[in-house]
Amino acid sequence: MRVSNLLLPTLREVPAEAEVISHQLLLRAGFMRKAAAGVYTLLPLAWRVVRKIEQIIREEMDRQGGQEIMMPIIQPAELWQESGRWDVYGPELFRLKDRHGRDFCLGPTHEEIITSLVKGEVNSYKQLPLLLYQIQNKYRDERRPRFGLMRGREFIMKDLYSFDRDQAGLDVSYNKMYDAYTRVFRRCGLQFRPVVADSGAIGGSDTHEFMVLAESGEATVLYCGDEKCGYAANQERAETVSASGQITSALEQLQTVGTPGCRTVNEVTEFLNVPPEKIIKTVIYTTDKENVAAMVRGDREINEIKLYNTLDCVRLDLADEQTVQSVTGAPVGYAGPVGLSGVRLVADHEIMNMVNAVCGANEKDKHLVNVNPKRDFKPDIIIDLRLVKAGDPCPHCGSELQEARGIEVGQVFKLGTKYSKALGGTFLDENGKSMPYVMGCYGIGVTRTMAAAVEQNYDERGIIWPVQIAPYHVIVVPVSNKDQKLMQAAETIYNDLNAAGVETVIDDRPERAGVKFNDADLVGYPVRVTVGSKGLANGQVELYLRRNSETELVSLNNVVCAVKTKLKQMDEGCIN
Amino acid sequence: MRVSNLLLPTLREVPAEAEVISHQLLLRAGFMRKAAAGVYTLLPLAWRVVRKIEQIIREEMDRQGGQEIMMPIIQPAELWQESGRWDVYGPELFRLKDRHGRDFCLGPTHEEIITSLVKGEVNSYKQLPLLLYQIQNKYRDERRPRFGLMRGREFIMKDLYSFDRDQAGLDVSYNKMYDAYTRVFRRCGLQFRPVVADSGAIGGSDTHEFMVLAESGEATVLYCGDEKCGYAANQERAETVSASGQITSALEQLQTVGTPGCRTVNEVTEFLNVPPEKIIKTVIYTTDKENVAAMVRGDREINEIKLYNTLDCVRLDLADEQTVQSVTGAPVGYAGPVGLSGVRLVADHEIMNMVNAVCGANEKDKHLVNVNPKRDFKPDIIIDLRLVKAGDPCPHCGSELQEARGIEVGQVFKLGTKYSKALGGTFLDENGKSMPYVMGCYGIGVTRTMAAAVEQNYDERGIIWPVQIAPYHVIVVPVSNKDQKLMQAAETIYNDLNAAGVETVIDDRPERAGVKFNDADLVGYPVRVTVGSKGLANGQVELYLRRNSETELVSLNNVVCAVKTKLKQMDEGCIN
Repeated sequence: MRVSNLLLPTLREVPAEAEVISHQLLLRAGFMRKAAAGVYTLLPLAWRVVRKIEQIIREEMDRQGGQEIMMPIIQPAELWQESGRWDVYGPELFRLKDRHGRDFCLGPTHEEIITSLVKGEVNSYKQLPLLLYQIQNKYRDERRPRFGLMRGREFIMKDLYSFDRDQAGLDVSYNKMYDAYTRVFRRCGLQFRPVVADSGAIGGSDTHEFMVLAESGEATVLYCGDEKCGYAANQERAETVSASGQITSALEQLQTVGTPGCRTVNEVTEFLNVPPEKIIKTVIYTTDKENVAAMVRGDREINEIKLYNTLDCVRLDLADEQTVQSVTGAPVGYAGPVGLSGVRLVADHEIMNMVNAVCGANEKDKHLVNVNPKRDFKPDIIIDLRLVKAGDPCPHCGSELQEARGIEVGQVFKLGTKYSKALGGTFLDENGKSMPYVMGCYGIGVTRTMAAAVEQNYDERGIIWPVQIAPYHVIVVPVSNKDQKLMQAAETIYNDLNAAGVETVIDDRPERAGVKFNDADLVGYPVRVTVGSKGLANGQVELYLRRNSETELVSLNNVVCAVKTKLKQMDEGCIN
Repeated sequence: MRVSNLLLPTLREVPAEAEVISHQLLLRAGFMRKAAAGVYTLLPLAWRVVRKIEQIIREEMDRQGGQEIMMPIIQPAELWQESGRWDVYGPELFRLKDRHGRDFCLGPTHEEIITSLVKGEVNSYKQLPLLLYQIQNKYRDERRPRFGLMRGREFIMKDLYSFDRDQAGLDVSYNKMYDAYTRVFRRCGLQFRPVVADSGAIGGSDTHEFMVLAESGEATVLYCGDEKCGYAANQERAETVSASGQITSALEQLQTVGTPGCRTVNEVTEFLNVPPEKIIKTVIYTTDKENVAAMVRGDREINEIKLYNTLDCVRLDLADEQTVQSVTGAPVGYAGPVGLSGVRLVADHEIMNMVNAVCGANEKDKHLVNVNPKRDFKPDIIIDLRLVKAGDPCPHCGSELQEARGIEVGQVFKLGTKYSKALGGTFLDENGKSMPYVMGCYGIGVTRTMAAAVEQNYDERGIIWPVQIAPYHVIVVPVSNKDQKLMQAAETIYNDLNAAGVETVIDDRPERAGVKFNDADLVGYPVRVTVGSKGLANGQVELYLRRNSETELVSLNNVVCAVKTKLKQMDEGCIN
């Protein structure tokens, strides 16, 4: 392809609308344009990247026995009413009516459709397991679409659904998908980590997220510093071990002390001259059913996901000032577990090892000292409640946990029988007994993976595509369009490379060399072949590698071979 | 792939909902299932066919310099309001609102989106021509979706848009696409015909439809019996030549005669004992602006498309009884042009050659005889108004026209500047003058092409896939699952064929041979390899060709070679 023909509208300026790197660079490098908020047109180069990612996904799904199908994007409301999600899904579901007034939605996911399909066709255990997938546009009416392809309202997903006879079958399907995902992201040339994740509102049990590691990632990942151990989790879900306390000090007498104006852990530790790990931080929450007081050590933070999962509730919020006042009898900042009634007390394991600790007195400007759990209060629930951070011990091996930022690009999920039961999806087992399918669902954000690849691979000059998903492998740049001989040499190289199966473009625009170089760096072709008159006089051209800026002169008759060698090295990860 | 694992739910019975062959067979053969009226899930085999068609299309679009992109399915209303189509598109447009109440539609076509995109990026004649395309779901809220994939509400289309500097450029792009379409449908292994078509409501000038020939086709195609001539047109648009009349008889005196109860051409010809070609058939129509009387010879039919295109109107309907009464002063059946005022008279060319003809007298139970055009009435418009039929002379060469039935699977269309002018899409020409893009649009119904392939290729036993788009090429059928040696031989052939790049399934289900044969015929694999114990004893298996039921014994060590030869012959069209 000739750059002069290619629709590749690069921009000099960073578009004001774009906050994150991938959004900025995909706009600047001419990969996409906005059609509406959170809705984009993918231009030729972006579409090439997407198709490469799709092809890798397809091959890995097929390798595990997946069968590709295509389900509708417009889904009838009836199925969503049957599953109960029509009413609970909320404003993120795009809804519409057809000309006869029937309700439809634009699919954000396809559990209902596929369960209903399989239910009609698969009636015997002999037909299981079944792995069905599709690669398709999905819709989510985000309140505030942003970050370009990272959080759009229309995006491309691969979604696979597994149907098994029992939990053991689901485990097999789940592991197949876990392996497939590992291969997919490796083949895309990305640095990533599968992490234990929270199952959230979908229900179900095990789930892993696949995180592309990038400093700009929205998610925090904790992983064990000991590579052999391999523990890794989303911070929402990360566990740790608490030192099992041997209580050695004597329990002192509980006392109330004045702490005028000291509401925060910092203020209290400073005023009372105690370290934060001596403080019982007590935070009041409200749910749809009750008020609760959650406790962690003063140097920790509460993991609200863990709290939410412990409480049987739909909604969990920090209590407002009024509620705190009515629950504790004091303004915000003086809550403590001692003598607190009418709320459930939820404590982190560490709390129970504290001796002669400090907490709020449930009275303005007052704290208690020499507080001792068990003696002075009894939590209703004792769980792992703290937000795990780098430096905390690994729950498996005790090594120090490390922290990284990640972008979630895939999730594998054990659904169990939630949808098969709701929609009556059953099969007959060996004994002729009707059983619900045991299901799993497995998603990859295809356009999101492209954006994440950019977040992980760029520099101040532009994108640095992993060779595996690069829109083209090579750009041939003749430094001047006026030199006939030079143009001819460039054309020959361009043709030879394409003929050798190397995806190559030629920048044949009548632009200055500097403009061409800048555009090539911005677009992020892995290899640039520069054809200049000086080199050509010696029968040479320059290879330039985008990733490490390495340059090398190669003789004209060796260009194809040299380029292929570099591409192979990049593909194998030998060039960083 | 093993049939035991494949989601391929064949049905014995013809589903009641399915009227047309492709709908019946695609359901029965397990290719698709309905999700809602006009909305289908494509199962694994259908999806394989679709992907093959898509790949052929993609290669041919790219060959002509097309660049693939992906535009959004949800389109903001603003663009449709700018082009004026938001209000006129009617109930076929699926409309929806986002959570903020903004209007969107599900794209039935993308002229607005792409014109708006290109307008933002292409400002110079140097950037033209530009051919952009996508392959994507499209939406049309049909009042009565039916015929399965032939007239669905969600369907897959390839749509390409061309942008040129001028009409000459558009002609080049148009011809490229005409050639590409010809190659696409040939490569799909289909019998088809490009025909001159009517441009209808989209506006614009030249347009051709690509018709897959099938008896069940909704459209009638007229084509010249002389292959060298090559004229072919949709009946809506087909032209003919009328014998230029040499008036030889003397003009007799106009007379009114009684024709009690004779309203139709048949009744009048019988009663008056004149041939139908002596009758001036006069039909009253109403438009949004006026009433008109349209005339063709009694043995002809009126082509309402031609009439519509002649009149400058939005709506054209047959007049109701009341209107006919008020226009002609007589009930329906007695209209004639003589003395008729207050309506425009539109006559077919042939009318002007008639001598001493018969027409209605605009009076109940009365006709006029010895009517002579020019002498007795003067048409306001004389055009080619008749519906052309088989046997009529070709407008180019005069040979007899032939008739065939066809299914429209593609259309190429010269749009001109309609959308670029409406949306302000302009570029600067060599002289720095701002000019609107000259556009074309070019569509292929991908899912429709699959259905049309079935309509053209089936028999009483099932589908007969053209090898080029068959979901798999070969099915290996071991006649018994109990014979270990036989199963082993079948497995070996299955593996060898796949290893040789032949897309092969094995029917490893514990079913009787008859069931397997029936399913294989229903699904329509081009080649069946039957592995039986009798043949095996002689070191042989049977090749069976679905298209012509030809069978052949081949030795075990020659199976791959023999199958590949047959496939190649089929691909080249040597097996019918």
